[in-house]
Amino acid sequence: MTPRQARDGAQLKPVPHGLLQAFRAYESALMSDDVAALDALFADSPTTLRGDAAGLIVGHDQISTFRAARGGAPKRRIVQTHVQVIDEDHALIVAVTELDRGGRGLQTQLWARDPVRIEYAGWQVTAAHVSTPEPAFDTRIWRVVGDPLVSSHTADGALSGETVAVKDLYAVAGFAVGAGSPAWLEQAPPAPSHAAAVASLLDAGAPIRGIARTEEFAYSLSGLNAHYGAPPNPKAPGRIPGGSSSGSATAVALGQASIGLGTDTGGSIRVPAAYQGLYGIRTTHGAVSREGLHPLAKAFDTVGWMTRSAFLLQAVGDVLLPESPGADVGEIHVVPALLDLASDDVATTVREALPDATSLAWAPARLDEWRHAFVVGQAYQAWRAHGAWLETRLDTLGEAVRGRFEMARSVTREQAAEARAVLSQARSEILDVVGDRVLAFPSASTVAPTAAEAAGVRDDTLRLTCIAGIAGLPAVSIPVRTPTGLPAGLCLIAAPGRDRDLLALAADR
Amino acid sequence: MTPRQARDGAQLKPVPHGLLQAFRAYESALMSDDVAALDALFADSPTTLRGDAAGLIVGHDQISTFRAARGGAPKRRIVQTHVQVIDEDHALIVAVTELDRGGRGLQTQLWARDPVRIEYAGWQVTAAHVSTPEPAFDTRIWRVVGDPLVSSHTADGALSGETVAVKDLYAVAGFAVGAGSPAWLEQAPPAPSHAAAVASLLDAGAPIRGIARTEEFAYSLSGLNAHYGAPPNPKAPGRIPGGSSSGSATAVALGQASIGLGTDTGGSIRVPAAYQGLYGIRTTHGAVSREGLHPLAKAFDTVGWMTRSAFLLQAVGDVLLPESPGADVGEIHVVPALLDLASDDVATTVREALPDATSLAWAPARLDEWRHAFVVGQAYQAWRAHGAWLETRLDTLGEAVRGRFEMARSVTREQAAEARAVLSQARSEILDVVGDRVLAFPSASTVAPTAAEAAGVRDDTLRLTCIAGIAGLPAVSIPVRTPTGLPAGLCLIAAPGRDRDLLALAADR
Repeated sequence: MTPRQARDGAQLKPVPHGLLQAFRAYESALMSDDVAALDALFADSPTTLRGDAAGLIVGHDQISTFRAARGGAPKRRIVQTHVQVIDEDHALIVAVTELDRGGRGLQTQLWARDPVRIEYAGWQVTAAHVSTPEPAFDTRIWRVVGDPLVSSHTADGALSGETVAVKDLYAVAGFAVGAGSPAWLEQAPPAPSHAAAVASLLDAGAPIRGIARTEEFAYSLSGLNAHYGAPPNPKAPGRIPGGSSSGSATAVALGQASIGLGTDTGGSIRVPAAYQGLYGIRTTHGAVSREGLHPLAKAFDTVGWMTRSAFLLQAVGDVLLPESPGADVGEIHVVPALLDLASDDVATTVREALPDATSLAWAPARLDEWRHAFVVGQAYQAWRAHGAWLETRLDTLGEAVRGRFEMARSVTREQAAEARAVLSQARSEILDVVGDRVLAFPSASTVAPTAAEAAGVRDDTLRLTCIAGIAGLPAVSIPVRTPTGLPAGLCLIAAPGRDRDLLALAADR
Repeated sequence: MTPRQARDGAQLKPVPHGLLQAFRAYESALMSDDVAALDALFADSPTTLRGDAAGLIVGHDQISTFRAARGGAPKRRIVQTHVQVIDEDHALIVAVTELDRGGRGLQTQLWARDPVRIEYAGWQVTAAHVSTPEPAFDTRIWRVVGDPLVSSHTADGALSGETVAVKDLYAVAGFAVGAGSPAWLEQAPPAPSHAAAVASLLDAGAPIRGIARTEEFAYSLSGLNAHYGAPPNPKAPGRIPGGSSSGSATAVALGQASIGLGTDTGGSIRVPAAYQGLYGIRTTHGAVSREGLHPLAKAFDTVGWMTRSAFLLQAVGDVLLPESPGADVGEIHVVPALLDLASDDVATTVREALPDATSLAWAPARLDEWRHAFVVGQAYQAWRAHGAWLETRLDTLGEAVRGRFEMARSVTREQAAEARAVLSQARSEILDVVGDRVLAFPSASTVAPTAAEAAGVRDDTLRLTCIAGIAGLPAVSIPVRTPTGLPAGLCLIAAPGRDRDLLALAADR
C-alpha cells in the first residue's frame, strides 16, 4: 500500500531517502522478534520514548529491557501508512495495523536521521506510541465481570450509582468461590446465596460489577498471583499492585468499579490501598459479618473495602458497619518509632501529611517478636482451615504461597500456643497504648516495590500492619504521594469499634 | 511539572517559543470541551491525523466532526510531559495523563508552527495519538464475560483451545436470557440448564467466554441496539457491525472469542459476517437443535456461528451438525440477477472472487414480493411469540425494533395466510432452482453502512438474505474485500442438509 503523505501548506514534501526502508525493516524485525535489530532502530538516548496503554517507558535501555522480556509482539500486517515529512531528517509515521488474533492497532513513530550512522541510512525512532486491541477484559484483574454481574433491584439506595468489585473470597450466588486458586475453583460448588457483605451492598443499591482476582487463599501481600498474573498498578506502572485484595484494588484504581470489597487479615486492604493511592479500611475484627467469606485465619480475618474517595469509603461504612455513638476524635498521634520502620521517602511523606500531629513516644520493643507470633498464629489457623484439602495439593500453589503453607503445616500445637501467649500480651499493650487515641504511621513500609523486590519488603511491612491485626483494630489507609509522585499510605488506627470515627476523620481531611 | 526535553546527540535544543503555551491551551480547551479552540489548534489539512484504540481519523474536518459528536473528553490532569524538539518549528510532545475516573492515559502529538498564523504563536497539531484506560469490558459487545464464564471440563475435545461468545438468546445455566432488552432481562428467571447448542460446544471442549449483546429480540440486521449501543466494527471503523448476532460477531472480529454463536432468521449471521469480514454459517432450518433458544420466528429461526477461519467454521459444524454423507459439490453457480441487487463494489468483488464460476440465468421475478411475504410471515410469528408480553411494553423498545413489532401486531390472520401461500410457492421455486447446485451471490447488498445509512439498505439486503430464509437453506458467508479494503460477504447456498458440503467448500478455498 502506498503511504499517504502529509501536505505542509500546499507543498508536498518528498519522503526522505531510506525512511520507508527503515520503517519496513523495523516491522520485519518486530515480526521476527529480532531484539537486536529493534534496539538498533531505536535512538540510543535516555530520552527515547515507547508508550502504550499500560504506560510510558523512557530511555533506550529501559525500552530494550521491556522488549527482551515480552517475548515478541502480536503478529500483524500494516493496512494503512501515513507519513508526515518534517524535513529531510525527520518524519512522523502513523500506521494502522490488523492483528492476526483479531482487531486493529495504531502506531505512531517519530523518526530522526543521524547522518553519522550507516545502518538503515541513519534512521531511528525517537518516540513510539502503540495501541493494540484489548482482550475482552483483563483476566489479571477480574475472573468474571458483567453489566452488571448481579443487579441490585434498588434504584434509590445509599450506594446507588456505585459498582462493586468483589474479592474472589466472598460468595456470590451462582458462582463458586475461586480464592485465587485454579485448583480450588475447579472443584468448588456454586454458592447458594450471597455472602452477608455482598448482600448488604446489593441491598444498598450497589450492583456487583464482577468477581476480582486475589492471591491464592489471600495468603500474600504482593498481588503476584502465580496463575493469573499480577493486576497492574496504574498509579505506579511496573510496580506490584499489593495484595491480597489485588484485583479489587486495581479495578478501583482504574475506575472499573467504585468500591473494592476485600479482606484484611495482616494488611491485605491497607497494602494495596497504599501501593495504589486508594482509600481503604480494614474494619474492627468481628464488626462486619464474615458469613459467606472464605477464611484465611479466622482470629484475624476482617472485612474491608477500598475506594477512590474518602466520602465513598465512609458511605460504604454507613451501610456495612454497626451503629456506634460518634466520639470526638481528638488529636492524632504520630508514632515516630513506627515511622522509623519505613523507608525515608514514605516516613517523610507520612510525617508531612500530619504537620499538626503530636508525637507519641511509644516504641514497641518486642515488635519483631509480635510480627513473628502473628505470622505463626496466622499460619496455624490457615493450615487448620485449608490443610486437609491442601495436604495432597501443595504442588498446585505458586511458589511464595506454597512456601507459606509448607511453613504453616510445620507449626506445632506448642508453637501455636507460644504464639498465642505472645499475641495476648501484645494485644494488651496495643490496646493500652491506643486507648482513645488515633495513632498514625505508614500503611506499608515502602512505596510499591517491583516484583523482584516484593519478598524483601514483606517482613518490614508486616511489622507495621500486624499491630491492627493482632489487636483486631480498625485501620484506615489514606493516600499520600512521595516527592517522586509515587503513592504511599498514611494509616490511622483506633480502638476496636471506632471504625466510623476513623472514616469521619478521613472524610474531613 | 517541568517538561523533560530530548537530547539530540549531545545538544539540548531549547523548547521553541510559544509551544508549551499552545500545549497548555490545548489541554485547557480539551477540559472545557471548547471545540472551536480545539479545531483551531489542529492543522487545517486533509492529512491531519487523530487516532486512538478505536481507529484513526484522517483529515481536520473528520476530526472536527468526531470531536463535536463525542461531548467532551474524560477529565484528566497531566502527570508527565516529554518534549522532543525537532527544530524551531516542529516538536513532538508525549504526555502521561491521570484520569479523574481512574487510570492513566498517554498522548503523543506532533506540533508544527505555521509562521503566518498569529493564534497560539502559529503552533498546531498535525498528528495526535491518544490512549485512555479502558473500562472493565466493552458493554456494547458483552453483557457478562469471564475467564471463562463457564468452563468445559474437557481438555481434549475437538474444540479445546477455542472460546465461545454466546448470543444473548441462548440459555446459559444460571443466567437469565436477556434477548437484547433490558426490560425483558429484568424479569427473566435464570436458566436452569444450558441451551442444546451451548451444551454441545462445552462438551466439545470450548468454554463459554461470555454472553454477547444482540438486538432486541434479534429483530434487526443492523446491530444498533438502542440500549447498549452498537458494538464496534473493527474492520470498518465508523460503520455498523451488522446484526442481530452483533456482539458475537464483534467479539470474534476483535479476537475476544474464537467462535461467535448466533442465530439467523433473515440474515442475522450472514450480515454481520459480511460487514465484519468473518466466516459465518446459517444452518439448514431444523438441522441443529434450538432447544433453549429464545425464538424470534420459529418457522425461520436457525442456529449459526461465525469464526475468523473457514477451518474453525467447519470444525464447529462437525460438532453441531448431524452426520451427513459428503456429496461432491460440483460447480458453483453465480447468479448475475442477484449480483445486480448489490452495490457495484460488492457485486464486482463477489464476481471476481469466483473467476471460474458458471453463471446461472435465474432471475426470480417476484423476489420483492417474496421479501415482503417473508417480512409479514416473520412478523406474524414474532408477535405470536412475544406479543402477549410486549403488548403493554412496546415503549421499552428502541425505535426501529418498536416499529417492527408495531407492524407485527397489525398483521392479520388473512395477511399471514396470504404470506404463507406466497412463501410456499417461493420455497418450491427456490428448491427447484437450487437442486444439487451451489449458488453464489452477495451475503449483503452493500458493505457495512454507517448508522445513518442502515435503514436505507435493509430491504435491499433482505431481498438477498430471504432466499435461504424462505427455503430453510444452509448458507455460508465467506469474507471478501472490496477495492477500498472494506469487508463484504460471498454467500453460498445449497439444498437443505448440505451444510457440511458448504463448510467443506469454504475450507477448501
